[in-house]
Parts: sequence; C-alpha cells; structure tokens
Amino acid sequence: MSICVTKVDRSAQSFADELAGFGVATVHEAQGRKALLDAALRPIYRPVSIAGTAVTCEVAPGDNWMIHVAVEQCQEGDVLVVTPTSLCHDGYFGDLLATSLQARGVRGLVINAGVRDIATLTEMKFPVWSAAVCAQGTVKETIANVNTAIVCAGQKIVPGDLIVADDDGVVIVRKEEAESVLDKAKARVANEEEKRARFEAGELGLDIYNMRERLTEKGLRYVDSESDG
Amino acid sequence: MSICVTKVDRSAQSFADELAGFGVATVHEAQGRKALLDAALRPIYRPVSIAGTAVTCEVAPGDNWMIHVAVEQCQEGDVLVVTPTSLCHDGYFGDLLATSLQARGVRGLVINAGVRDIATLTEMKFPVWSAAVCAQGTVKETIANVNTAIVCAGQKIVPGDLIVADDDGVVIVRKEEAESVLDKAKARVANEEEKRARFEAGELGLDIYNMRERLTEKGLRYVDSESDG
Amino acid sequence: MSICVTKVDRSAQSFADELAGFGVATVHEAQGRKALLDAALRPIYRPVSIAGTAVTCEVAPGDNWMIHVAVEQCQEGDVLVVTPTSLCHDGYFGDLLATSLQARGVRGLVINAGVRDIATLTEMKFPVWSAAVCAQGTVKETIANVNTAIVCAGQKIVPGDLIVADDDGVVIVRKEEAESVLDKAKARVANEEEKRARFEAGELGLDIYNMRERLTEKGLRYVDSESDG
Amino acid sequence: MSICVTKVDRSAQSFADELAGFGVATVHEAQGRKALLDAALRPIYRPVSIAGTAVTCEVAPGDNWMIHVAVEQCQEGDVLVVTPTSLCHDGYFGDLLATSLQARGVRGLVINAGVRDIATLTEMKFPVWSAAVCAQGTVKETIANVNTAIVCAGQKIVPGDLIVADDDGVVIVRKEEAESVLDKAKARVANEEEKRARFEAGELGLDIYNMRERLTEKGLRYVDSESDG
Amino acid sequence: MSICVTKVDRSAQSFADELAGFGVATVHEAQGRKALLDAALRPIYRPVSIAGTAVTCEVAPGDNWMIHVAVEQCQEGDVLVVTPTSLCHDGYFGDLLATSLQARGVRGLVINAGVRDIATLTEMKFPVWSAAVCAQGTVKETIANVNTAIVCAGQKIVPGDLIVADDDGVVIVRKEEAESVLDKAKARVANEEEKRARFEAGELGLDIYNMRERLTEKGLRYVDSESDG
Amino acid sequence: MSICVTKVDRSAQSFADELAGFGVATVHEAQGRKALLDAALRPIYRPVSIAGTAVTCEVAPGDNWMIHVAVEQCQEGDVLVVTPTSLCHDGYFGDLLATSLQARGVRGLVINAGVRDIATLTEMKFPVWSAAVCAQGTVKETIANVNTAIVCAGQKIVPGDLIVADDDGVVIVRKEEAESVLDKAKARVANEEEKRARFEAGELGLDIYNMRERLTEKGLRYVDSESDG
Repeated sequence: MSICVTKVDRSAQSFADELAGFGVATVHEAQGRKALLDAALRPIYRPVSIAGTAVTCEVAPGDNWMIHVAVEQCQEGDVLVVTPTSLCHDGYFGDLLATSLQARGVRGLVINAGVRDIATLTEMKFPVWSAAVCAQGTVKETIANVNTAIVCAGQKIVPGDLIVADDDGVVIVRKEEAESVLDKAKARVANEEEKRARFEAGELGLDIYNMRERLTEKGLRYVDSESDG
Repeated sequence: MSICVTKVDRSAQSFADELAGFGVATVHEAQGRKALLDAALRPIYRPVSIAGTAVTCEVAPGDNWMIHVAVEQCQEGDVLVVTPTSLCHDGYFGDLLATSLQARGVRGLVINAGVRDIATLTEMKFPVWSAAVCAQGTVKETIANVNTAIVCAGQKIVPGDLIVADDDGVVIVRKEEAESVLDKAKARVANEEEKRARFEAGELGLDIYNMRERLTEKGLRYVDSESDG
Repeated sequence: MSICVTKVDRSAQSFADELAGFGVATVHEAQGRKALLDAALRPIYRPVSIAGTAVTCEVAPGDNWMIHVAVEQCQEGDVLVVTPTSLCHDGYFGDLLATSLQARGVRGLVINAGVRDIATLTEMKFPVWSAAVCAQGTVKETIANVNTAIVCAGQKIVPGDLIVADDDGVVIVRKEEAESVLDKAKARVANEEEKRARFEAGELGLDIYNMRERLTEKGLRYVDSESDG
Repeated sequence: MSICVTKVDRSAQSFADELAGFGVATVHEAQGRKALLDAALRPIYRPVSIAGTAVTCEVAPGDNWMIHVAVEQCQEGDVLVVTPTSLCHDGYFGDLLATSLQARGVRGLVINAGVRDIATLTEMKFPVWSAAVCAQGTVKETIANVNTAIVCAGQKIVPGDLIVADDDGVVIVRKEEAESVLDKAKARVANEEEKRARFEAGELGLDIYNMRERLTEKGLRYVDSESDG
Repeated sequence: MSICVTKVDRSAQSFADELAGFGVATVHEAQGRKALLDAALRPIYRPVSIAGTAVTCEVAPGDNWMIHVAVEQCQEGDVLVVTPTSLCHDGYFGDLLATSLQARGVRGLVINAGVRDIATLTEMKFPVWSAAVCAQGTVKETIANVNTAIVCAGQKIVPGDLIVADDDGVVIVRKEEAESVLDKAKARVANEEEKRARFEAGELGLDIYNMRERLTEKGLRYVDSESDG
Repeated sequence: MSICVTKVDRSAQSFADELAGFGVATVHEAQGRKALLDAALRPIYRPVSIAGTAVTCEVAPGDNWMIHVAVEQCQEGDVLVVTPTSLCHDGYFGDLLATSLQARGVRGLVINAGVRDIATLTEMKFPVWSAAVCAQGTVKETIANVNTAIVCAGQKIVPGDLIVADDDGVVIVRKEEAESVLDKAKARVANEEEKRARFEAGELGLDIYNMRERLTEKGLRYVDSESDG
C-alpha cells in the first residue's frame, strides 16, 4: 500500500524567489551549515540557479512509474525531488517528463538516481541535479509514495520545504525557517560584500577576521625553514 | 599469442547515419533496453552525437601499443572501441592518435580507460567517451587482440556492430539487428513527437498512458495528508 | 605544534611561464612520466591552463583556517596547493578567498578536497582543480603546517616546486629539474609537430614508429577471422 | 549552538530482545521493506546480532568530542548511533570509548564513519557497524547535537527508535511500530519455516509461490536453445 | 518477451572437479590470463573453493523473480550465475533460495548484485560470491532471460561453461577449452611445486627465472644511494 | 633508466619489535597523528600485527617484474612496500613470492594494488595489506625503481623507515623519529591503561578529561526535548 498526498503546505513563493538569488553556499551558511544534499548530486548543465517548493516522490529501483503520479501534484514554482528506495543509477527521467513538468511551471528536478536525454534537457533549459547520467530505461510496475517525508541524498525532505540549487549543489530550507534563513542570508551577503572589497584591496583574512592572536595561542610558529620546525 | 583480424563484416553505413539522429536513449529503448555500456563512460565534451561501425582493440594495463595496430584496421565511418584487459585509468590516447584516426575518417573513440590532451581533442572536435581523463603516459611492450569480440564496459562488442553515442552514453546495435532497430526507433520517435505535443499542451502521463486504473489496482491511495496514510 | 615556513626557494617564474604553454601531458612525458597528481583532481571549468610555484598548505578535515595563513605566504606567480590531513570533500574554498588570492597575483588553486562558489570562481576566471564541488562549510579551530613538504593527491610537493595544470590534470616539476624538463618538453613538442604532420597526411604510427617487426616478434599474427586465431 | 536532549522516549526493551532474534532481513521485510541503512555500513566482526534503543549523536568531520557527551546519555540496552555532519572516514571510536559504553550496558555502535582498535573491539565482543576502519585520530573542538532526530546512512533515526543489526546490516524500527513489526516478523518466520521444509524436500519456488501462470502471462517462453528465442 | 533455455550443453563434471583443486589464479594463468570476473565480486566467507557448470540468469533491478525460474534449470554440479540488467546492490538472494539450490546439488552462487542472510548461508556452507551484502528486499514483477549468454562482472558467460571460484575471485573456463586448460593447469602446478621448493631454499626469482641480464638491458642500474641515480 | 639502491640505512630492529606491540592507532597518535597510509589498504586476514623496516618498490601497471628485484634487497626484519606508478588492482603478488620473502625473514607486504593466492598466504601466515584481492596476472616487461623514496597510499616512505601494521591499517615511523615515537607510545599506553580502569569502573570521559566546562563555553545546552532546542 502506498499513498499520494494531495494537500501540501508550501512555503511562500516569495521566499524561493529571494533565496534563489543568494545561492546554495550562502543559504547553507545562513542556516547554520545544515541540510545540504550529498555532493554526488550534480547539475547536468552550468551555470544554473533555482529555488522552489518541494514535491517529493519515491521510486522503486529501475521503475519510474511514480514520477507520473508526482507530476500531477506539481504546481507552478515547485521543484520535483525523486529518490529511489535503493541505490539505482538508471535513467528515470527524460525530455517527455521534462516537457510535462515545464508545462506546469515546475522549476527543476532533483533526483538521487540517473537521468537521460540531457542534450535536450539542456536545450530546453530544464534544470536537473542528478547522481548520474544514464540512458538505461525503466519499467512501470511498482508503486511507492508521493508527497510524504523522504530522505534524499542524505537529507530529510518534507513536501513544501524550499529547495535551493545551483552549480554548488542542493540545499533544503525548512518551510518554518524560511523567513529567518532569508534574513540571515541577506545579512551574510551584505557582510560578504564589504569583505570582498577589503580582499580586493589586498587586505588579508588574517587581519579582517583578527586571527593572528588565536593562531599563536594554538601554537602556530613562523619559521624560516622546515628544518627549524 | 595475439591476433589482429583484418576482415570485418561491417553493418551498412546508412544504418549508422540514421541511428545517429535518434540518439542513445531512443535506440536503447527501440531494441528492448539492452546493450548499453556502463554509465561511467562519459563524453569529453558536450553536446556530441555520433554513430559508426566498431573496430575493437584490447590493451594491456598501462600499455597503448595495440591502438596503433587498430588504427590501421579503421576505415571511414568506424568508431574505435578500446578496452584494457584489467582496470586502468591511464591516458592511453591523445591528440596524435586522434589526428591519425581523423585522417582515416574515424568518427570517434570509446575507451574504458583514460585519455589525455582533451583540450586539443575538443578543439579538433574528435568525439571521445572515456572512463577517465588522465595525463598518465603508457608504454608499448605487450600485445593483445584487435578486432576480436570483446567485453567493454559491461557489454559484448563484435567488430562491425554499430556504436551509437551521445551526451547520454554509448549503446551497441548488433549488425544483424540494425535494420529492425532502426524501424522501431523511427516508430518510437514518431510516437514520442505526438506525445510531446500532448505534454506541452498540459496533458498528464497518467492520462496519456492510461495509468490511473492500474495504479488503483496496485493499491495507490490518494490522501489529504501523510498521517492519513 | 604547527609551523608556517616563510622563506621558500621558488623556481624561476620564467620556467613556469614556458611550461604552461606545453601542458600537463607533455611535461609529464618530458620528465619521464612521473609526478602526476591523482586524476580525481579536476578543473572546475575548461579550457584552462596555468603554471606557477607551489605554496603548500595542510588543513584539518572540515577546517579551512590554515588557508588564511597560507594566503599571506603567496606571491605573484604562485599556485596554492591544499591537502586535508584526512579524506574530506567539504567546501574549503570560495569566492572570497579567491578574491584575496587574485589580489596577490596567485595563478590558481590545487586542492585535494572540495570547493564552492564555482559559478563565481568561473566568472572570475580563477582556476581551481579540486576533488569535489561541495557547498559544505568549514570551521576554523585546528592548526596545521604551511609551506612544508606535503603529499597531495599521491605526490610529494615541496614549496617552490612548479605546478603545471590544465584540462588533463596537475603535474609537479621539481625546482631543481625545471630547466632540464623544459628543454625536454621543447624537444618533445618539436618532434610531435613533425609527427602530427605525418599523421595528418595519413601515415600510420606502425610505420612512423617502426613497430611492425617488433609486433611480429612478440607474436602478433594477422588473420582473416577470429576463428583463425 | 547545539543541544543534548536528556529525556528520550525509548521503545520497550522487550521488543528489542525479541527482534534481535529475527535478524535484519526479516525485520526489514516485516515492516514493508523500509528503513534499512546504507549497505556501506558493515560489522567489524561476524557473526554478530543485536537490537537496542537508539541514542543519536552528530559529530563534526574529524572531531569525536560529542561522542563523550553521548555516552553519558546511554543506558542499559541502548545502541549508540553516530553520524558525521559531512563525509568523514576518520577513526572516531576505539577501545576506551567501547569500554565506557560496555560499562553502561550499551549493546553496540552504529557509525557512518571510521573506527579503530578493531582487534581489541573484537576481543571485547563489542559490536560495531561502521563505514570504514581507519586509525586516523580525531580532535575535540567542535560541538554538535546529541539525541536529536538525525539522518544516518540514508535513514532518519529518532532517539528511542529500535536498531536491529546483524551480518546483513542495520535496520531501524520506529518505536510506534515496534509491536506491529514484531507481530509481522513472527508470522513471517513461521511462514518461512514451513517454506524451508518444502524447499529442503526439493519443491520449487515456482510451485510453492504459484508463479508459473503469471510468468507465462508476462511473456516468458521456454525454448530449447537461445537461437529459438 | 524473455526466454528460458532448457537445454544446456554442459562441460563434463570431471573437469570441474579437477579444476576446483587448482584454484582461480592458476586456472586464470593456465588459460592465458583471460576470463576473470571483476574483483568486486567477493566470497561471503573464507576459505572457500568450488567449480561447476554455469546456469545463467538475468534479473531486473530490484527484482529477483527470474532466480526462481533459474533454480528449476539447475542440476547437480551447477553454479548459478546471476546478473542484474543495470547496477543494483539489493539483496536478491537469501537462505530460502540457498536451501532450494542446495537441495538440487548446486555448488554455489555468483551474483553481480547483493545477497542477504549471510550468517545463515555461512552456517549452511553455501558458497556465494557477490558484489555486496545488503538486506534490501526485491519484488517479483519483471521477467528476463535464463540460460542465455550474458555478460556478468565484465565477462561473457555461456550456459554450460565452467565457473571456478575461490578466495581470490571467480574465473570462467569455456567448455570447449576445458580439457586444454586443465592440462595446462596441471603442468603449471607441477612447475610451481618445483619453484616453491627452490624459493623455500632461498633461491631468488632473479636467478630461477634468469632475469638479471634482461634487467640490465632494459637499463636497471644498481647504485649505493638514491642520489647516485 | 631506473635504479635499485643497495645500501639502506635501516632503523634498529629493536624499535620495530617494540612498536609492533603498541599497534597502529597508538603509534599514529604518539607521533602527532601523521603518516597513516590510506585506509583502503586492508589486511588479508585478521588478527595480524607486525612492524619492520621498509624496502620500497615501484611497479608499472600490470607488471610485477620489479618485485623480484626488490626481494633480493630484503633482509630479516624488513617489510616490503610496493606501489604501482598508476592505479592498478591486478594481482601482483602470490604464494611463490611470499615463500621467497618468508625464506628471507621478511615480516610482511604492504601493497597499494592487488594480491592473489590469499588462501595460501593466510595458511602460511604471511601478513599482507593490500588495496584489492584480484587473481589478474601481471607481466614482466617494464622496469622501475627499488629502494628509492616513494609515495604509497598517500604517504612518503623512505627505505629503512619503520612500518607498523595491524588490523587498523598501516603507519610509517621515520627512522630518525623512531626512538622518540617509542617513548611517547609507551607513555600513551601507560596513560591509557589508567584511563581504561576508570572507564571500566563507570567513570565518564566528560569527567576524566574535564570536558564539561569547555562544552558549556562552546554553547552546548542540555534540554529535555528537541523542541526546546
């Protein structure tokens, strides 16, 4: 017995729109360095940067049936997140499913498995983060859950949570934390801008971050040659 | 004792020319989802798409001598397929060998090992699918077979079989099946075109493929929330 | 107790400038096929080609503190080489540190770990070779050595040695061998140019390199079909 | 800011005691094939079989400080579950920590990282499932959470959930499902005993499970030789 | 459409019985260093050593249905060889299937996927070589071929070929080459026995194999210290 | 041109004999957590524990010729350390070479490649740490260096340095540091014995190592439930 949950409490689209501009590394730092998906998920083309609300989808190994069920649950501004119930690199997703998602206003796909038709997906500018590129076809025999809480690429994802993805990878922002993460990301970026100007001017991190004293306390010694060490 | 087979029964070039247009995923599906090489073989640049007749070449680990023997067996329209007799990621192939193959009208290289000079290969537009990029040089001390049936990246390849390769990977079409695979690929693409139009118009796979009843039979239930599951 | 060595005997910049033009594969061959870093280190964008003098930096897993110490030791024409003291794919390096290095005239980064902000690094044209792309942040708690001899990605690197890096990977040239390697690389390239012309004209490696007799001695036989083998 | 949760709602010990006898594969099947940890976690010695209630512990990469905090939270019958906040194979755990856990009646360790002193751990008969064996030492500089819900090796683990682990791997049983999983496991084992007797007597799965008709419907044909296929 | 081939031309059992005694490394060398399966296939217990005739079985990812079909085709002295049609580490095989195979006199299982119940399989002394140990269950929905020529773990296997497997891995002997391989294996072992006695007596391979002159010709120089090199 | 260095300055045997008793983890800690080989090197049987002086040997991929050269350089109490010049998992070493080494009093083999005949090696009680078990044979065509400084599995090894290896892996002790490392290892073990008694008695690491105050300073808070966090 499997279920497809039809009512999802989505984070506000405005949060997604703003977070997309900050990028994964900044958002990840802003929320205390958590909720990053495994770095094995890579974009099929670069540069790319999106954010949206998660629709989740489990699939059996070698079986992409449930993606069709999930598509119907997707709305404008969503990101589809697919995870196989055991390790599988088959090509679960190609240009027809992308066409269907694009027609619904879906912003991209995150899948801990393989995809195919990547030349066409790239032309269509449909963003995909996947664990593999593989032309291996799948069957439609086994059902699984749609829009339940899942673990994908090492992170728990609740439907309606925010997905932020770019060249660096994929990070989740819990819907209940979206506002505060956004505030922290803004502050962080403002601070980074100021730092960047100082770095460009030739100042050192050692001075900007006031590290010299603490390094000495920890025992760092400056010597003329390794044999003095 | 090793052999170099000089007479190869090649599939007709016209099949290769037509199959190249369909791409790996479609050809793979058209022949019943078989004969796909391991997804670890990736193109060194994208987009890229070729098809041709296989010349096969075994090489010892860290030894590219037999590639020179294989080059002489290559004709216009061939694809050179190289496999080491044990796991090796050394750079077996670079721009000089590519120049030699290009001069003979060879369409590309598929190698379950490493290649180098990829900046030049990319400039030359010489297509390569490899398991690694690695500058490690090789020696010329040990012989092996050319144009015998081999296993490369998980698939048996007979000289003269068709190789179709693109951004999605590499697939083989047996020469005796080339005509029927081509027919099925054409039918498949025609069908996909019609489907694509329907997906673009917003129709769902659930309806296009008539999946709803069978999903219910398998036990899928639509619920308002996960706790109803 | 850790040390930062402040006096480094650097190879002459002129060697770096000339070696950069030859590329990794040629330099690697010219010095007898040695000193190539593990092929797992890949550039974040392509094409790219640099050479410079090594500043070395150890870092603790998940801790990028010492990179800030290393930056101060970097000069115009250097390449920063970073290695974690145990396997770690975290994102040790991003656009702010790249800004700082670029301000100092550093030519690139080689790191046996992860980096982030790669969209910005690509825009900045700051060359990076890394083992991973990962947004995972790091802390600043543990010290380690700067500008000592290290092992990075399978090779010993002494501060001041030359680093040559391009689309094919990364190779080291010992400072005491730089001149002779440069001479051999020049000879090799001249020889390759002549070979390339012959390959383009359709000559075979079998003849250019005079291989036929030795292949026969080793036992290679030419046959009409595999069953003759 | 990190937290250590001191009140954990543990599943009843009696469930653990009974589930340990059934083993991972049976328990996994009994609960609908879910909640299995990544197969990369392997026992350091075999045979081994335990079950207990989870105490969870996050650790920074290369930093085992929080394990000491977690030990204090462990009770008789617990299993300590440790996950690094990013990929790390360092040796977080050795014989002294095992001595401490054994003194508290803890039944074993599940860690998505490395351990060391495995000769001594084996002699002590302290069960450990780990992603690596590695002598690499760790520091004590960075804090993280203890007894919060974590994702470890691909599964969400809530403190107090049941951990069942044996030669086949590690599976979680949610505390609220423990009773029903136990019932289903018992039924499954009874059924398997009966099946085993029939298999031993030479009956075939094809007949025991009544598969022949459905195989024919799916299109399986029995032929004398492959060329008849 | 899939097929199950019921008539298999098996190599004589006597060859298997004799080859089992020689072991994988010797047999592999005796047949010219070919036909070794990928080293990722490891025995679930050690020491172990078998030989038998291959029954082949394809399975869909996450689907062990066809193993039941294959069991019926197995006879006394066979080894069952199972390969998934795409990468999958699920636990396709456990103690019930082993009981069924053991009841039919099957000598072991070679599977390029996962197995489970390994504690019981070890107690039963049922030999298994697998790519993984994993408790993940499989479904029974998709058919595939039994007793056709397959590629498993990098080698082509024809039903009826001989499988030799021990602590070192798995090698295939073509049925048509069995007799000659056996002869060469005997000669090799006799020769090794004589060599072993000489090695035990302290003679060096350099002298036993007469290597010194050829090493000098290749350019090996004996020096007092590395700086003389 | 390659060299075999015949004069090696070996660390005193007495250091090896004493260090063997402490084990890899302790020795690694005693020398400041450095010089551990990559954890991919695993012993072929357990338990096992040795120490000895390094004789180093480079080998070409798929070519074990130089091991024969290295054997002659081995003395009573040595450990042979072999590294391929590029990644290779072939079976470079088997029971005949082990017989030869055992006849010379060599204590074991460390090899960043594959070995075979492991059933016999285990019976002979010849200790081996390797990156793979693989029956794949090798050739004898290409020379390389013996007894030069090498990098093996991530660490620089100088001939005559001490190798300590056990169930946890392999660590190097520089000959010039052997005495001081031995002293520190002794002190460490004495300290650990005292700690072990306290752990056995139920004391916590939090108290034994006085961690509570520093944890609080870092921001650790004890709470009743995660929602208080």
